[in-house]
Amino acid sequence: MWYIEKHNENYQVGWRVSDILYQKKTPYQNLAIVEFAEFGRSLILDDAVQTTEKDEYVYHEMLVHPAAFTHKSPRRALIIGGGDGGTLREVLKHKTIEKVDLVEIDEEVIKASKQFLPSLSESFNDPRVEVIIDDGIRYVKKVKNYYDLIFVDASDPVGPAVVLYSEEFYRSLFDALTADGIAAVQSESPNFYPDIFVKIVTTLRDIFPKVNVALAPVPSYISGFFAFTVASKVYNPKETTPNITFPTKYYNEEIHNACFALPNFILDMLKIR
Amino acid sequence: MWYIEKHNENYQVGWRVSDILYQKKTPYQNLAIVEFAEFGRSLILDDAVQTTEKDEYVYHEMLVHPAAFTHKSPRRALIIGGGDGGTLREVLKHKTIEKVDLVEIDEEVIKASKQFLPSLSESFNDPRVEVIIDDGIRYVKKVKNYYDLIFVDASDPVGPAVVLYSEEFYRSLFDALTADGIAAVQSESPNFYPDIFVKIVTTLRDIFPKVNVALAPVPSYISGFFAFTVASKVYNPKETTPNITFPTKYYNEEIHNACFALPNFILDMLKIR
Repeated sequence: MWYIEKHNENYQVGWRVSDILYQKKTPYQNLAIVEFAEFGRSLILDDAVQTTEKDEYVYHEMLVHPAAFTHKSPRRALIIGGGDGGTLREVLKHKTIEKVDLVEIDEEVIKASKQFLPSLSESFNDPRVEVIIDDGIRYVKKVKNYYDLIFVDASDPVGPAVVLYSEEFYRSLFDALTADGIAAVQSESPNFYPDIFVKIVTTLRDIFPKVNVALAPVPSYISGFFAFTVASKVYNPKETTPNITFPTKYYNEEIHNACFALPNFILDMLKIR
Repeated sequence: MWYIEKHNENYQVGWRVSDILYQKKTPYQNLAIVEFAEFGRSLILDDAVQTTEKDEYVYHEMLVHPAAFTHKSPRRALIIGGGDGGTLREVLKHKTIEKVDLVEIDEEVIKASKQFLPSLSESFNDPRVEVIIDDGIRYVKKVKNYYDLIFVDASDPVGPAVVLYSEEFYRSLFDALTADGIAAVQSESPNFYPDIFVKIVTTLRDIFPKVNVALAPVPSYISGFFAFTVASKVYNPKETTPNITFPTKYYNEEIHNACFALPNFILDMLKIR
């Protein structure tokens, strides 16, 4: 049996499925946990792969560490989405972190991850974590000057995640951050979804003084680069040398510097050359 | 109609085909030129996409420029394979180049590219180019101390290209290069073909004093990174600042430095951390 994911009308990928472990229609989306022969266990929401055991580390490390090391001593972090726990796991590796709030709209995602994806969801057991089942947009609007780091670990801009790509939302992120806070926003594929990618980056550029795009290919998501935008009030990630004190599988000091180098076709999309 | 390419037993990609322009069984392989709705015209050999109009620049720029700029003033270059003309086009952009020999085993590839892929094959009209229809292995064995640059623009290690991955062949590349020469070798996908990737890099490391891997994702090839190994006798690409005097779509000065940064999972494969 093959799982086929259409990335657009003209391009699709297919993975052989060894097992379907769980399926549920939640109030927000269709959720499935399947076992792929190539990528291991995978969380699928509304027919889009969210994470796979084999390569989830690329996405989660690259969403978290370029931003977190740029801050140097973050104490409080917020994760919007991220119900699988992978982003949470990476944030908790930073020893200065005292508190992480994770706001997930669909608690069924957390439940399924706790049952089927322990290598990601073990992070929920850390005493520094508070889980809030709520709409991330509504939640973050109420917070002012509180978080050192905010991670937007949203689904693709369909279903419940579509409003996570608006200017109003990004302004509320800015206000919820401390004076030297940093937001990291998953920013889709510049190759396959250039309009969404450009909109996220240019909107963040209107609000934050220092905006840089980090790139890394995530094999199970989509071919080509995947983008992560680091939107910072004070610190510049390109002038940061990370002091990495824990094991990683993708991110390292050289990658920190290299990930912000953009090829010409992306500089052209963003009109910055 | 969909063209389906199996990258292994458990993973495949599919592209909608708008048109089949040409099909021929050559003495060496099955050759086709098709039009993909997403990637434009594409050369397919033995059921593997070799190049597409939309993203061929990533592969061809990244095979050529990191090596060519590291040399600084290359005069003579050899291309093994590369019958579509894309690598040739990029080599000829370097103004110090006086002569490029292109050794392609299957002249039908060049003929088809000249007819259907003019944006790549226009490079064959340059007076500095000599095309040699021959087995690249046999050809390069006869040459000593002649080329400043050699590019191995081979197909995947199936069909006629399988011997292009042997230690004997890499030794003959070394001998065919001048005293400060550089070889650049397409080195497959570290994610999907780690054994081939590691074999290429480690074999080159046994022969050349300075071996560095450049990475770039090529969307139409395979998901994740694609690798290019730069095997150099004298110059170190990581200590090179390129002076780029012509337009490029992917490669730039920041990318030159960034492309040699390897994520931890690749450092581990290569046992260099």
